[in-house]
Amino acid sequence: MEIPVIRDVLEESNALAKENRALFDEHKVFVVNIMSSPGSGKTTLLQKTIPLLQARGLRCAVVEGDITSTLDSERLSPLGIPVVQANTEPFGGDCHVGAHLVQAALKYLDLSALDILFIENIGNLVCPAEFYLGENFKVVVLSTTEGEDKPLKYPLMFRECSVCLISKMDLAPHLDIDVELLKANVLKTNARIKVLPVSSKTGEGLDAWVEWIARKG
Amino acid sequence: MEIPVIRDVLEESNALAKENRALFDEHKVFVVNIMSSPGSGKTTLLQKTIPLLQARGLRCAVVEGDITSTLDSERLSPLGIPVVQANTEPFGGDCHVGAHLVQAALKYLDLSALDILFIENIGNLVCPAEFYLGENFKVVVLSTTEGEDKPLKYPLMFRECSVCLISKMDLAPHLDIDVELLKANVLKTNARIKVLPVSSKTGEGLDAWVEWIARKG
Repeated sequence: MEIPVIRDVLEESNALAKENRALFDEHKVFVVNIMSSPGSGKTTLLQKTIPLLQARGLRCAVVEGDITSTLDSERLSPLGIPVVQANTEPFGGDCHVGAHLVQAALKYLDLSALDILFIENIGNLVCPAEFYLGENFKVVVLSTTEGEDKPLKYPLMFRECSVCLISKMDLAPHLDIDVELLKANVLKTNARIKVLPVSSKTGEGLDAWVEWIARKG
Repeated sequence: MEIPVIRDVLEESNALAKENRALFDEHKVFVVNIMSSPGSGKTTLLQKTIPLLQARGLRCAVVEGDITSTLDSERLSPLGIPVVQANTEPFGGDCHVGAHLVQAALKYLDLSALDILFIENIGNLVCPAEFYLGENFKVVVLSTTEGEDKPLKYPLMFRECSVCLISKMDLAPHLDIDVELLKANVLKTNARIKVLPVSSKTGEGLDAWVEWIARKG
């Protein structure tokens, strides 16, 4: 008698992610999975980044991951791009965007009309790092307000990411933050990560970030 | 033939939490489970709060939850109180402090010599809200830097907590934050929550917070 084996949850998740990846490859869509703590400024960053990419003729869309609410999608809709709100609430209130959620969101997007797809993950510096969604790269946004120690305390996130944006650089003068120490802690956790200090408010550093996206990493 | 049933994970967790609770009751220890996003200022708040409680003759200890590192415990050790670093890494890198972790930490504490025990949870506005550890109350720290929308996007955390400390009030003048709207969003999510604006830097609001702890809620 054959014993039925339930496939490992991560294996199942990776299989779905590979299906997403195949679709992205077929349509040559560059996909960035953006992760961070709540309130580090992911949505504001996208509000500033997308017009700069549009100015280069790049067609963008966003899968907006949240547990509940459409607040972030509403903030992005004035950009006139396709935005799909992907709430985990109907999937049990998951604390991260799963590959199945991206797959569900892709039904609402015309990939043949896209160059860049951003997946804005749920604000959580822990769990989202564990899941491959089919993206080209993972990016972490870390705000200057969060302190220098976060890469050392949440290392998996920084190990998994290709880029670390240090956001809210405009606030640094008002904080007891040592940005050089913060950068050093990021690099101590992942020597190959690209560290880009940015401010969505002043525009500092956005050129380098946009350049990275336009060059597709 | 009897079919073995593995007990539900939450049921198992709650059973351990009740064992913790029985120990706290036996020794009349008031236990506060402090939760927040990474970098909202939980450890700094404890550094400022505990001396004010000590000045009132209250004996404090901290169970310091982290995935990895002893950074926060090292910051608290100058207070001369018992601090137990409880890392989830050996337990699989859990994204929240579990009741089993508190139980393991209690082996290192003399509860008969304590009045107040703080459990500083892992920086995560999502998962920790789901778990009862045996505490008297859950408290959420939300920094002014995180924006007004967080209670609407992460409602479970705010529904589960008895107190919401709005931290880093000293930074509010440098931010595009409407603190009244933030408070309204907290109360919209949980009408019974106590909202206390505080600043660990200036000391604003710490009296009301310390009073709440000293009165044991």
